[in-house]
Amino acid sequence: MVSDDEGLNRTGGKYVEPGGEFTRDQRYIATRITADERDGWPVEPGRYRLAVSRACPWANRLIIVRRLLGLEDAISMAVAGPTHDKRSWTFDLDPDGKDPVLGIERLAEAYFARFPGYERGITVPALVDVPTGQVVTNDYAQMSLDLTTEWTAHHRPGAPDLYPEPLRGEIDEVNEVVFADVNNGVYRCGFAGSQEAYEKAYHRLFDRLDRLSERLAGQRYLVGDTITEADVRLFTTLVRFDPVYHGHFKCNRQKLSEMPVLWAYARDLFTTPGFGDTIDFDHIKRHYYEVHRDINPTGVVPLGPDLSNWLTPHGREELGGRPFGDGTPPPPHPSPSE
Amino acid sequence: MVSDDEGLNRTGGKYVEPGGEFTRDQRYIATRITADERDGWPVEPGRYRLAVSRACPWANRLIIVRRLLGLEDAISMAVAGPTHDKRSWTFDLDPDGKDPVLGIERLAEAYFARFPGYERGITVPALVDVPTGQVVTNDYAQMSLDLTTEWTAHHRPGAPDLYPEPLRGEIDEVNEVVFADVNNGVYRCGFAGSQEAYEKAYHRLFDRLDRLSERLAGQRYLVGDTITEADVRLFTTLVRFDPVYHGHFKCNRQKLSEMPVLWAYARDLFTTPGFGDTIDFDHIKRHYYEVHRDINPTGVVPLGPDLSNWLTPHGREELGGRPFGDGTPPPPHPSPSE
Repeated sequence: MVSDDEGLNRTGGKYVEPGGEFTRDQRYIATRITADERDGWPVEPGRYRLAVSRACPWANRLIIVRRLLGLEDAISMAVAGPTHDKRSWTFDLDPDGKDPVLGIERLAEAYFARFPGYERGITVPALVDVPTGQVVTNDYAQMSLDLTTEWTAHHRPGAPDLYPEPLRGEIDEVNEVVFADVNNGVYRCGFAGSQEAYEKAYHRLFDRLDRLSERLAGQRYLVGDTITEADVRLFTTLVRFDPVYHGHFKCNRQKLSEMPVLWAYARDLFTTPGFGDTIDFDHIKRHYYEVHRDINPTGVVPLGPDLSNWLTPHGREELGGRPFGDGTPPPPHPSPSE
Repeated sequence: MVSDDEGLNRTGGKYVEPGGEFTRDQRYIATRITADERDGWPVEPGRYRLAVSRACPWANRLIIVRRLLGLEDAISMAVAGPTHDKRSWTFDLDPDGKDPVLGIERLAEAYFARFPGYERGITVPALVDVPTGQVVTNDYAQMSLDLTTEWTAHHRPGAPDLYPEPLRGEIDEVNEVVFADVNNGVYRCGFAGSQEAYEKAYHRLFDRLDRLSERLAGQRYLVGDTITEADVRLFTTLVRFDPVYHGHFKCNRQKLSEMPVLWAYARDLFTTPGFGDTIDFDHIKRHYYEVHRDINPTGVVPLGPDLSNWLTPHGREELGGRPFGDGTPPPPHPSPSE
C-alpha cells in the first residue's frame, strides 16, 4: 500500500517506489472541526491537541498558522521526536516518553482510538480530541484553512487574515501548483525509483521554482501584498531545501541560497515573527537522514550546510507590502516549547 | 579485507565500514618503470598502456600529467567505462567491449596476468606492459612523479617541470596533508560507518580546506609560482567536489563554489590547457552514484548541479605566477578520446 512518507505503512522504513514514481497517499481523515459543528466536532478552546513534529513540513504549516493567529492558548501542542520507526511518531521528547496531556507514547494510539486497525499513514499534523483521545483529523491542508476561517472567535487581537475572501481563488491556484511541483515535488525527486521518474520530478520542481522566482521578483508575497496561507506553504519547503532536499533528495540544480529571489523571500519570512521561530534545523535534518534508511542506509546526518546566512539582510522591504495587513506580528513565543 | 574504493574486494559493492572509519588499502604494486630499469621495466616509448577511468580522481592525475608533459605518443591510454561491478573496471566503451590494444574486457585480466589470484583492489590508474599484458604498477602517487622525473627524454618541448628539485620537500609536505585530509578525506566522510567517524573526517576536511584557502589567497599555485604536482593532486578532488562529494559524500559545509579562493583557484586550473580538457562530468557523476549502492541504493544520478559557472572569470592572473614556468601550455587534444 502506498502511504504518506511519514506513515506507518512504509514497511520497514521503505520510501522509494522501486522502478517508478513516488505517489503520496492523500487519503486523510477528512473530519472537520468547525464553528457550526457540522461533523460533530465543534470549535472549542482547550479541547483539542495539535500533534506535530518540528521536522515535518506539513506539520510546520500548522505550527506557523497557530502562532500567527495566536491560537496557542486555544489549541495546545504535542511535539513528537524528530525520528520514528516503522510504527511512526513517538513522544520520546517528553518525560517517561509519554505526551503529558494525551498520556500516550505513540501517535498511533490516537489513530487506533478513533479507528481500530487503522491502516493508512500515521501522520502529523493531527488534531486529537483530548477527552476521548481520538484523532479528529489529519487533513493538513484543510486543517490550516480551518484554523484561519473557523477559529476566528479565538484569534488574538491583530491576527492577520491568512485566507482573505477576495483572494481565495488565487491562493488556491497557487497552492495547487506549489503542492504538486514543490511541496510534494521534492519528495518525488528523493523517492523516485527510476532515473526517469527522478528527472521528470526534478524538471517540474525547478521549472516551478523559476516561475515562482519571476513572480516574486516584483512582489513581496505570493498573493496580494500581505502574508497568506500560500506563503506559509511555500516557506515550509524552502526552509528545508538546503539542509535536506538539496542533498538527500537530489534537488541540486542550485541551493536555495543560489536562487536570489527565492532566497531573499525565504529569509524575509524566516525573520518574520511566527516563521523562523518555529524552525528546528536539528530536528529537520535528523528526521530525514535517520528515518529514510532506504536512501541513506548509514543514517549519518550531514553536519552542513552552514546556516548562519539565514540572518543576512534580504532587502525585500523595498518591495513594500504589509506583512500582517491591518494586523500585527505575533508576540514572542510564550515558552520555548511552544 | 579492506580495499581501495575502486577495488575488487569490496564484496558486493560495499564501501561503508560498518560502525567505523573508512580505511583505504594503500598496498599497491610498487614496481617502478624507470630510466635505469632498476625494477626490470625500462622507460620505453610505445611499450606501456595507461589504464584509466575518467571518473576516478586518482587516474585523473595521470591523465593530466601525461597531457602536460606531452607523453601521449609515448604512453597510450585505455579508457574504462565510468561504472563497474564488483569485478571492477571494464572496457565497455570500446568496440566489442575489449580494449583494442590489450585485447581484454576487464582490467582484472591484466592484474591476474601479473599475479594469478591477485586479491587486492583492481584499481585505476595502472600501467600495463603491452607485450606481456601484465600490470606493472598501480601505485598512482609514484607513477605520476615517475612520468615527470623518469620519462624526461620523451617529454614534449616546453613541458613544465611539475616536481622541481628545490621544491620537492615542500611539494611532498603539501601532498601529504592534502591526501590525508582532502583527497582521501572526502571518501572518509562518504564511507564513514558511524556519525562519529563522519564528523571527524568532515572537520579535518574543512579545516584543511580553510587553511588551503588562506595559503592560496595570496599566491596563485600551491608551491612556488608555477603549476606543480601538488596542484594536480588538489585539482582532481576539487573538480569533483560540487558534482559528487558535496551531496553523495556529505561534504556539505559549503559547495566549492561558495569557497571563493578555492573556487577561483579551481577555475583557473580548469581553464588551463591540460586540466579542464581531461574532465568528463558525466563519467564522474555516473561512477560515484551508480557504483556506490550502499550509500545510494537507487542508483539515481542527480541532474545537478548547474556546471556552467566553471567558465566564469576567476581573476587569479592578478596574483602573477607563471603557469608553465619557462615552458609552454600543451597543444590542444590530439584526439577527443585522448
